[in-house]
Amino acid sequence: MPGVSLTPADKVDIARELDAAGVHVIEAGSACTSAGEREAIRRVAREGLDATVTSFARGVQADVDAALDCDVDGINLVVPASDRHVETKVGSSRDAVVETTVELVEYATDHGLWVEVLGEDGSRADLDYLERLMGAGLDAGADRVCYCDTVGAAGPERTAEVVSRLVELGPTSLHTHDDLGFGLANVHAGLEAGADTVHGTVTGVGERAGNVALEEVAIALDRCYDVDTVALDRLYRLCRRVADVTGVAIPPNKAVCGANAFAHESGIHTDGTLKDGAMYEPYPPETVGRERRLVLGKHAGRAGVAAALAEHEIDVTETDLREVVSRVKELGDRGKRVTDADLLAMAEDVQGRERDRNVELVDLSATSGGNLPTASVRLRVGDEEHVASGTGSGPVDAGLEAVRTALQQGNGADGADGSAGSDGSHVDDAAFELDSYHVDAITGGTDAVVTVAVDLSRGDRSVSVSAADADITRASVVAMVDALDRLSALEANDADKDAGVTRPSE
Amino acid sequence: MPGVSLTPADKVDIARELDAAGVHVIEAGSACTSAGEREAIRRVAREGLDATVTSFARGVQADVDAALDCDVDGINLVVPASDRHVETKVGSSRDAVVETTVELVEYATDHGLWVEVLGEDGSRADLDYLERLMGAGLDAGADRVCYCDTVGAAGPERTAEVVSRLVELGPTSLHTHDDLGFGLANVHAGLEAGADTVHGTVTGVGERAGNVALEEVAIALDRCYDVDTVALDRLYRLCRRVADVTGVAIPPNKAVCGANAFAHESGIHTDGTLKDGAMYEPYPPETVGRERRLVLGKHAGRAGVAAALAEHEIDVTETDLREVVSRVKELGDRGKRVTDADLLAMAEDVQGRERDRNVELVDLSATSGGNLPTASVRLRVGDEEHVASGTGSGPVDAGLEAVRTALQQGNGADGADGSAGSDGSHVDDAAFELDSYHVDAITGGTDAVVTVAVDLSRGDRSVSVSAADADITRASVVAMVDALDRLSALEANDADKDAGVTRPSE
Repeated sequence: MPGVSLTPADKVDIARELDAAGVHVIEAGSACTSAGEREAIRRVAREGLDATVTSFARGVQADVDAALDCDVDGINLVVPASDRHVETKVGSSRDAVVETTVELVEYATDHGLWVEVLGEDGSRADLDYLERLMGAGLDAGADRVCYCDTVGAAGPERTAEVVSRLVELGPTSLHTHDDLGFGLANVHAGLEAGADTVHGTVTGVGERAGNVALEEVAIALDRCYDVDTVALDRLYRLCRRVADVTGVAIPPNKAVCGANAFAHESGIHTDGTLKDGAMYEPYPPETVGRERRLVLGKHAGRAGVAAALAEHEIDVTETDLREVVSRVKELGDRGKRVTDADLLAMAEDVQGRERDRNVELVDLSATSGGNLPTASVRLRVGDEEHVASGTGSGPVDAGLEAVRTALQQGNGADGADGSAGSDGSHVDDAAFELDSYHVDAITGGTDAVVTVAVDLSRGDRSVSVSAADADITRASVVAMVDALDRLSALEANDADKDAGVTRPSE
Repeated sequence: MPGVSLTPADKVDIARELDAAGVHVIEAGSACTSAGEREAIRRVAREGLDATVTSFARGVQADVDAALDCDVDGINLVVPASDRHVETKVGSSRDAVVETTVELVEYATDHGLWVEVLGEDGSRADLDYLERLMGAGLDAGADRVCYCDTVGAAGPERTAEVVSRLVELGPTSLHTHDDLGFGLANVHAGLEAGADTVHGTVTGVGERAGNVALEEVAIALDRCYDVDTVALDRLYRLCRRVADVTGVAIPPNKAVCGANAFAHESGIHTDGTLKDGAMYEPYPPETVGRERRLVLGKHAGRAGVAAALAEHEIDVTETDLREVVSRVKELGDRGKRVTDADLLAMAEDVQGRERDRNVELVDLSATSGGNLPTASVRLRVGDEEHVASGTGSGPVDAGLEAVRTALQQGNGADGADGSAGSDGSHVDDAAFELDSYHVDAITGGTDAVVTVAVDLSRGDRSVSVSAADADITRASVVAMVDALDRLSALEANDADKDAGVTRPSE
């Protein structure tokens, strides 16, 4: 995939995950590419995995030698199959390609390699020639052949036509791309025509529109045909791992692994899901190692909002609930996602509860660009003001440090044992964790409004808050301080309950 | 789609684009959702589009009334079809649902509405009941019915089985989801079974794993079946528009509209594509309103690197080219994308060309967090140093302003007419455009290294540069200044050529 490149260590790590999931063959790379690539393939080959470890090889002996040099179990030998590739690209002839293929298969198998012969651009090849080329490869000792829709140009009918002829010759694999969106449709057609192996990539990365996604092949075969392939409950972590090392973010609406794959916002969907998990899900999220998520927004309905409020232990009357739902929708109408903090603020307002802010950002200043990014904050914590500064790897990191130091001062002022903060809570204010810090990709220019979303936790309480500002430093620190304020309110509520205090709303 | 919400203005804008592309029916929203949603639907309905404008409506009269109130042409009337939805979700019975459906269809058609009846969760419904329910809707006057794989649970066989029964009753639409990756495979199976209309969303946004992507349906039907649907050459701008207003980024490997859909990096792919565009593309990018893109990285080969150097008018010997290719691969091995700046630096080094930096960042300082983000820079431009400051909406924006001001000083020092800069070039140094400023999403924490990529142009020259730093301000300004340095070198080269000067490398 253009722009993606993995280090040897990353490749070994992914190979181990693939092996643990039960993938049968791992193409660890293309040995002819570079010294770094060969080092990576060699390390994967020497991992002692259950999977057959292979290298991609073009139809030249140097590539087979490079693969042998990496100690792989086998090769995916790619030879041109369409006239466009035989003549225009390689400048060869049909006969010469068959001859070379036979020689290379014999050479590779003589050296103990498992061999799969791939007819490049096979979906656009003359079928009689493709049959002759693949047949010659099998006769020369290849273990299997592969139908390649190299440019993702075929539909299911063409795939079935080609594959049904290849399977007469020997075991056949499928290599499909998603340029027309037909990646999985062609896998379906090819398997129905008799193929028994599928080439896929985790999350569907690959050239152009990518290869068919391994996790989709696995879940589709399991759910619709009861066919076992890999360990489904490892799919999600596998996808996350690949996304992390490639830097290619998983789209929110990606099947199996996308953030929204098991998230429900719209009113009827959330309502239905709360009644019966299967109502709006094709299979339980646990199948692929995940959990369900309910999200609030303009499509939210009564059931979803009530469930979210209950999670924060807030009781509301029917009338108040109706009003909160209407405000959630209103915020959603303005194109906003509704966070915990938003929901809690709405509930307070509707219930007429006065809640003083416990933690407030009074002032913020950050310097960056030089060698020592520095930030200072003035926080109001309860009735006191605390000023603190901090340094960090950048202005936001320095801001986080300054906030933490300011909260520590708060603890210190009330007693070195930290047993009681100025806000009456019993927790160490500065002992919070920034569980997640996310900034959406910025593309609008240097003056674009940046949205920062944070998940903060302290003890067993956690809260999600987002803030938007054209100044990334300000958006980040505002979100953190708002989250801390929310956390301390939740903790105060817990403390009241421990002490038997009843608030008007309960 | 959870977290996505459009304003009425956005909806009108997208509806116009859909109409211009020739989409036949536009479901503008769900009138029961909120006041903002109704306002949006009303505005779309009153746009005077060629498309039939509809509202989603649940099987209750209030929803039909809300739709009527929005002046739509028709409704997509959703009624429960599976027992899970009829009994558990709605708490009703099969008979009662049929009765309500008939009443509502009659009510809606009496009020002049076009009606499509959707049997929710139809793919998991008892087929005899689904047939009875849809048949009753058509008998009551509905214009068409719709097969709904609401939870994306069906495979192509089940889709064909259900749709082939519905088409016996009347015109049938398809509504498929991609939870198993079968969204388009099911459209294919459904059309083959006799359906004549497809529900799709632009870029495949939607609940969970999303709906089938409109652009994939359109290109697949055109390429594999010669079926006209919408104006293909408007697909790319349509996708970009939807991505912009929803804030849902298009994945790089998305068919039709992804950044990589027509990008080529690996050596054999680039080599082949330079010989014949169709070598590694299923169809010309112009078909969907796009252009081809060649990218350098660890898979780059000689042909691709030579083409990129030629674009910058750099001649290299065969030996030097081999060395540049090897360095490109080396950088790629370390997981980096190779920008113009990287390539030019490699070529200079290999050719032993000494190139003094024309523009250099000597010092940078930025303050943010408060009301007036400010930055100051000390730049060396040619033999002079310029110190300038600027303000902006955030530290990066202020940094950009400071750089621009510093360059203006450079022009001023050499003459108010700006005819000659201190570096001998004839351009106004400060007249550059930041064509693109992109920061990848940040997820690693506040101390994560941030990669900033900028495209800068001045006159008819443009250059891409990226820089990485844990300090976003620093990474951004370093990338901009590096790009300006590269631009001024390219311009000096142009000026030399105009003056007949020959550099050693040429």
